[in-house]
Amino acid sequence: MNRFLSLGALELGEIEELLALARRLERFPEPSALAGRVAGLVFFDPSLRTLASMQSAMARLGGSSFVIAPGRGSWPLETRAGAVMDGAASEHVREALPVLAGYADLLAVRAFASLTDLAADLADEPMATFAALVQTPFVNLESAIDHPCQALADWRTLDELGIPRAGKLVLTWANHPKPLPLAVPAAVAEMAALRGMEVVVLRPEAYAFPEPLAARTARAAARAGGSFRESAERDEALAGAAVVYAKSWASARHYGDREAEAALRRGLGDWCVDEDWFAGAPAARFFHCLPVRRNVVVADRVLDGPRSAVVFQAHQRLWVQMAVLHRLLAGGERRGR
Amino acid sequence: MNRFLSLGALELGEIEELLALARRLERFPEPSALAGRVAGLVFFDPSLRTLASMQSAMARLGGSSFVIAPGRGSWPLETRAGAVMDGAASEHVREALPVLAGYADLLAVRAFASLTDLAADLADEPMATFAALVQTPFVNLESAIDHPCQALADWRTLDELGIPRAGKLVLTWANHPKPLPLAVPAAVAEMAALRGMEVVVLRPEAYAFPEPLAARTARAAARAGGSFRESAERDEALAGAAVVYAKSWASARHYGDREAEAALRRGLGDWCVDEDWFAGAPAARFFHCLPVRRNVVVADRVLDGPRSAVVFQAHQRLWVQMAVLHRLLAGGERRGR
Amino acid sequence: MNRFLSLGALELGEIEELLALARRLERFPEPSALAGRVAGLVFFDPSLRTLASMQSAMARLGGSSFVIAPGRGSWPLETRAGAVMDGAASEHVREALPVLAGYADLLAVRAFASLTDLAADLADEPMATFAALVQTPFVNLESAIDHPCQALADWRTLDELGIPRAGKLVLTWANHPKPLPLAVPAAVAEMAALRGMEVVVLRPEAYAFPEPLAARTARAAARAGGSFRESAERDEALAGAAVVYAKSWASARHYGDREAEAALRRGLGDWCVDEDWFAGAPAARFFHCLPVRRNVVVADRVLDGPRSAVVFQAHQRLWVQMAVLHRLLAGGERRGR
Repeated sequence: MNRFLSLGALELGEIEELLALARRLERFPEPSALAGRVAGLVFFDPSLRTLASMQSAMARLGGSSFVIAPGRGSWPLETRAGAVMDGAASEHVREALPVLAGYADLLAVRAFASLTDLAADLADEPMATFAALVQTPFVNLESAIDHPCQALADWRTLDELGIPRAGKLVLTWANHPKPLPLAVPAAVAEMAALRGMEVVVLRPEAYAFPEPLAARTARAAARAGGSFRESAERDEALAGAAVVYAKSWASARHYGDREAEAALRRGLGDWCVDEDWFAGAPAARFFHCLPVRRNVVVADRVLDGPRSAVVFQAHQRLWVQMAVLHRLLAGGERRGR
Repeated sequence: MNRFLSLGALELGEIEELLALARRLERFPEPSALAGRVAGLVFFDPSLRTLASMQSAMARLGGSSFVIAPGRGSWPLETRAGAVMDGAASEHVREALPVLAGYADLLAVRAFASLTDLAADLADEPMATFAALVQTPFVNLESAIDHPCQALADWRTLDELGIPRAGKLVLTWANHPKPLPLAVPAAVAEMAALRGMEVVVLRPEAYAFPEPLAARTARAAARAGGSFRESAERDEALAGAAVVYAKSWASARHYGDREAEAALRRGLGDWCVDEDWFAGAPAARFFHCLPVRRNVVVADRVLDGPRSAVVFQAHQRLWVQMAVLHRLLAGGERRGR
Repeated sequence: MNRFLSLGALELGEIEELLALARRLERFPEPSALAGRVAGLVFFDPSLRTLASMQSAMARLGGSSFVIAPGRGSWPLETRAGAVMDGAASEHVREALPVLAGYADLLAVRAFASLTDLAADLADEPMATFAALVQTPFVNLESAIDHPCQALADWRTLDELGIPRAGKLVLTWANHPKPLPLAVPAAVAEMAALRGMEVVVLRPEAYAFPEPLAARTARAAARAGGSFRESAERDEALAGAAVVYAKSWASARHYGDREAEAALRRGLGDWCVDEDWFAGAPAARFFHCLPVRRNVVVADRVLDGPRSAVVFQAHQRLWVQMAVLHRLLAGGERRGR
């Protein structure tokens, strides 16, 4: 294993091994496992959890990390092939990433969706291109259509909370002032499907999963004996849920058209998860990947109540990323030229 | 001790112990005391000394640190309870700080005064709220009305320079292009009072300490046998000073009214500390917490002359913060979930 | 050796020793050589390679580092002597750098050229002033007229690629949307001259080296038995080159006059290095310090072809900087007050 790009790209057994390694590292710390190793963290987009948990994960394994933020501290980077670079970008990723890979034992990159070109975002080409530019171990810290660190942390959260493998997970669209990437919904739906769960995506019709994403999720369900469907009927979808996972995302119908999307959302203010959503699933836990906008995506009383798992979820990021870093780096050769 | 929020919240004996620990760590380094420990540093506001000295302090004790800067590298954070978060802030501190605390063994936060609501700033509510959100050890890196790391460093500076416990410390207001928080003047006056000094706050009438702050400083003086008073008479106040500590702060009279404050200051350009201020205290040392604006707050010839202790003061930050981190973290359990 | 300010300030034997140390550290890692040591990295200007390679170099030697970025995370710093600081800058380097030096075992500073005052930039006064403010070991991470880390890395690159000591190195001006500092061309030309190479600077007449720079390069050539000349004739200059090193720089004729410079450049779009430049030097390697603008400075087919050494060049930064840090820090006393 030299790449951590997508949970769906792994064998189910590899995922189980990562989760077992996370449990082991929590119980039996290995504070020198990555001594002398350096992770290079490249953030094209802002971060709180991912930055802090990656730096902490490296430190707890005895390694260290550096952070490069193109456009903030470093100059903007060009990503298009063949570009005549007479604009804002001073450097191309074709130089920048291989150079940084030479200073690090592992490179990890965050680059959000364009939110303008649906087909390109669904194909997740930029992240694949970045990974192909370097030979060092490589981690996807959220790409246009994936967020495997979040997905693995959520799987661990489900295990730790004792949510049954065959339980029902409802991923519900929620309102938000801005159109957001499909990365987390895609990664979470695939994760739950791979875990063998009954996955229901609850959303207004305009927020249906675009076809390639629905197909990907269905394939994941088929691999693991789970199921996947979509619904616009709140009561039906939520009934019997073990987990209600809220997340906003952009409409595939109006992708890149902010005005049409804003008009659409003006009628969807009631897509704010509140306690009455849980009438048919009184024991369900509430999940969100964070950051979450209080009283827009979800009401204070849900977030501050006993069903909320959101902070616990975020804490699992540390342990699963320690496992990923350990798997990609420990035991290998220290990097020379 | 699990919190370092304010010098005034400590027993005098605890302060002495921290200072003794700082001396010990300077003389007998403990480069592995915090091996495997991680400090999370959250800067809502910019920093130079505090950031560098905290990261260096962790490193010199064998630990490491990560930095989160909401609004610069991370998104802005909401702090108001009950907010409908449809504005700029993507995340609430109620999630962000507990999440970060899960990645760290200690959280340290800087959040400056609002400079708009005097009562709120004097009550220092945001920092108390932040601290209450997390169970990990917590350090105040400058709040609306306090700066305990600066105060402890200044206490150590006074000790190292041999300034008598009962010596006279004059905290003088100085001119500045902008209204500044009361945090440092409040922390320094309290510190000197707790050390048993004769504390005189020299300022134009419009810059008198607001009543709750004056009362807090007087209580500190009462605890330690020192004294506290204010004066607008420069010669009288400065006579016999062992230390002249310059600092600008906002007028409580015009708090939040930048135009009224600016008008007031146009007549106060002579509140720039110069050598002639020391006629009645020729051996007095000059202190400032930095950053300092040369030739506005204090003349070059004072800062560059032998009475200036400002760089030495700043260097003490390292040793006292090492003591605080050691006290809060060493010997405890390594953090699990 | 307590300063690394300019390759030209070193004895040739000292440079050879640094290169030998770099080779040794690559072959025989010393992961504890700088245990407990802290480097303070001050970036007045943005960085990608320098930041990442310095942090990685400290980490690989067992030390750590902190980063201060005035104006981004920290406030802007004043550099002028005698300034009345009532503007944007909150702090003067006369305080900031000695303070930071107290937290670190070594200070390293990047501060680009003004690009407005040619004489001041050629004199490189700011970096000399910064270095004079601190007693700790000090590294120039690119100043107005020098970039010794880049120069030393390029020397190592030439050695590693087997470029003969007496080989011909052509430093060619290239087009660029913006006027850029003379630091890299100055440092590279001096480095190649000190290595004993035949150094030819190929440029349009308006981009001739200003006289003090030409004189400095000629002196370097005289020290080492190499040669230095300038030329505007592309074919003649390039014939027989072992290395073609491309870099754009500002015209000394129009220094600080962006409009005149922009007008001048409108006729120079063919100064984009392409494969046909190598007709008279078919085996020549292509160098650039990066960041490089593709298809403005150099064509894709050169950068992506086998003659390009640019990523390899950048990777050498790590090893030579490890040598510089090791030389300045290892074996010395751990820093007390």
